[in-house]
Amino acid sequence: MNNFTFYSPTEFVFGKDTEMQTGALARKYGARKVMIVYGGGSVIRSGLLDRVKQSLQEAGVSYCEMGGVQPNPIDGKVYEGIELCRREQVDMLLPVGGGSVIDTAKAIAAGVPYEGDFWDFFMGRAKVEKALKVAVVLTIPAAGSEGSGNTVITKVETLQKLGLCAPDRLRPVFSIMNPELTYTLPFYQTACGIADMMAHIMERYFTNTSDVEISDRLCEGTLTAIIKEAYRVKQNPNDYGARANIMWCGTVAHNGTCGVGREEDWASHALEHEISAVYNVAHGAGLAVVFPAWMTFMAAHNPKKIAQFAHRVWGVPESNDWEEMALAGVSRLKHFFRYMGLPVSFKELGIDNPDIDRLVDSLHRNKGELLGNYVKLSKEESKEIYCLAL
Amino acid sequence: MNNFTFYSPTEFVFGKDTEMQTGALARKYGARKVMIVYGGGSVIRSGLLDRVKQSLQEAGVSYCEMGGVQPNPIDGKVYEGIELCRREQVDMLLPVGGGSVIDTAKAIAAGVPYEGDFWDFFMGRAKVEKALKVAVVLTIPAAGSEGSGNTVITKVETLQKLGLCAPDRLRPVFSIMNPELTYTLPFYQTACGIADMMAHIMERYFTNTSDVEISDRLCEGTLTAIIKEAYRVKQNPNDYGARANIMWCGTVAHNGTCGVGREEDWASHALEHEISAVYNVAHGAGLAVVFPAWMTFMAAHNPKKIAQFAHRVWGVPESNDWEEMALAGVSRLKHFFRYMGLPVSFKELGIDNPDIDRLVDSLHRNKGELLGNYVKLSKEESKEIYCLAL
Repeated sequence: MNNFTFYSPTEFVFGKDTEMQTGALARKYGARKVMIVYGGGSVIRSGLLDRVKQSLQEAGVSYCEMGGVQPNPIDGKVYEGIELCRREQVDMLLPVGGGSVIDTAKAIAAGVPYEGDFWDFFMGRAKVEKALKVAVVLTIPAAGSEGSGNTVITKVETLQKLGLCAPDRLRPVFSIMNPELTYTLPFYQTACGIADMMAHIMERYFTNTSDVEISDRLCEGTLTAIIKEAYRVKQNPNDYGARANIMWCGTVAHNGTCGVGREEDWASHALEHEISAVYNVAHGAGLAVVFPAWMTFMAAHNPKKIAQFAHRVWGVPESNDWEEMALAGVSRLKHFFRYMGLPVSFKELGIDNPDIDRLVDSLHRNKGELLGNYVKLSKEESKEIYCLAL
Repeated sequence: MNNFTFYSPTEFVFGKDTEMQTGALARKYGARKVMIVYGGGSVIRSGLLDRVKQSLQEAGVSYCEMGGVQPNPIDGKVYEGIELCRREQVDMLLPVGGGSVIDTAKAIAAGVPYEGDFWDFFMGRAKVEKALKVAVVLTIPAAGSEGSGNTVITKVETLQKLGLCAPDRLRPVFSIMNPELTYTLPFYQTACGIADMMAHIMERYFTNTSDVEISDRLCEGTLTAIIKEAYRVKQNPNDYGARANIMWCGTVAHNGTCGVGREEDWASHALEHEISAVYNVAHGAGLAVVFPAWMTFMAAHNPKKIAQFAHRVWGVPESNDWEEMALAGVSRLKHFFRYMGLPVSFKELGIDNPDIDRLVDSLHRNKGELLGNYVKLSKEESKEIYCLAL
């Protein structure tokens, strides 16, 4: 087990009607003026935005707002938000939505007190020293952004989709999570969220670090719970218990619980970011395509942990042939994704002839010569994985 | 799943040599003068205390100290510490040790800014509104006090062993956890710690709350990891990987991770507190006696979750006869405790003729007419469980 720091200071307030506590919590954490950030019209139509505003008013917290954040969030909305926050003297960002909305709010929070271009942080040219506070009302369990210090933004001009990790500055101070708010998510979006949270766990799970039994078990337990509850939510989208389990799994998957003391991988996320940056597909759908391909490659090159995953999560019988076990696990994972209506190949993702050379070039330009940790991937190997996903 | 708040703001700094960060962390969290609290001479003999002091000096944090805290910590040391802190104008408590030392420090932290008797908090006569900060250097993985807002103190005069929970005030701001510090623990103490952390999980696990798959799986995964690593540490007490896994399991067991969204039980802890208050046995050993008895009772009265535990943690085959499954699980748990050198009956604990009526009277005087939640226990039923432990 490697040395580690585990620090998850976010106050998670979880359950029915919890959005009515938004105002009181914003006040508790010192907000005087918040900027509500949201996406399309669904939070308006559902009445959620009105309930949040009412709660802020009752607590005496004033607010302004910025809507229109799109999936795969882009730099344009960040610049717009930074300007608005400065003009309105906002001291807390309040994203109401899913990962795209939260990530946009985090980038704004870092950008407001910074004199340069916020994109400097994503390019590694500057460190986040100060940021406005961020607090969340979550409507889509997927990205885990409600409990992480991470944000991912796409720069439209260059089609670069890059992440920033600044846990000491960008972790939400509180996150409100009402599973009932997820009843109306289209099933495809629910499924994409499930693929995303599973990927967050698997990026941590597939490691060469030894003596990590406790985090292995936490990873496997969370994956097992997600799979069971996914079947339930497919049968009944309004099943509160299933929705609640999935929502909390999305947080556990990404707040650090599953990653303590181990080297993580994250090659699959990088492989996927290139796809969604260029083809603008849903991140979770892209992951459902990439991860089985990555695992198929790993079954041949480093099967140990893939075989353990196959056995402990999918019930594949133990044997001495780890590669065979691993491939059986990949097969069950693909079957599960298909059952959830997710694509497991470029073709099923609607991309018949992906420009793989372009993806590979951009990937290694953004991420360097070698990618990931479980097996460090060269350009050739990244290409092989993209080809396995055809 | 019930509504819940999950809030674990402690910064856990885990791994080799981390005690050398004590001073820098104390400074980061604003300490000017800390009071080091410790138990017997082991932290002196091992050189740990000197390393901690050196680290404080290097960071420019001054300190005073109070040693002599005993297992099953008592009110006397709390009064002594409160006076010392006031005289020395201490602003942070720094327990270096295990649960008894940490719990004493927490009680002192609550008592210093309070005008009345600190025991008021434990009797429910006052709420902790203010407290000094607490930070931890952990040497015994067991109580989970390094990540919890709980403390348990015994009042000598009345032999009342009572707990206090004030998570917003008494959670450590940081906890330093170096598994190497646990190499020299006597094996019996290691085993008692393991029983204690398993009990913390089981108190949360045995619930009637439905739709808690994610926390069920986190409980089961943590228990499974503890059991596996316990066998390894018995074979080699200096196995860093095994020690590291067990140490982190002790934190996960009690920082809230395993209890989200569910009604918890805690009857077994209350049953045990009476035993260790009167007979001054190790808390973990007392739990190894009480828990199998409690579970045997539950196998007859509410076997469902005990049967699930038997299947998922101990590999007992599934059947329709939940009581039979549950009893098979109890049998495996007892076998494990015995293998670890722990007692599983009053007799093995060295108490041939426990005064059960006295235990029961005191228990229900302290805790009220009904105890626990999984099955609410009357006096008669508490007595039955004590008798099952004979």
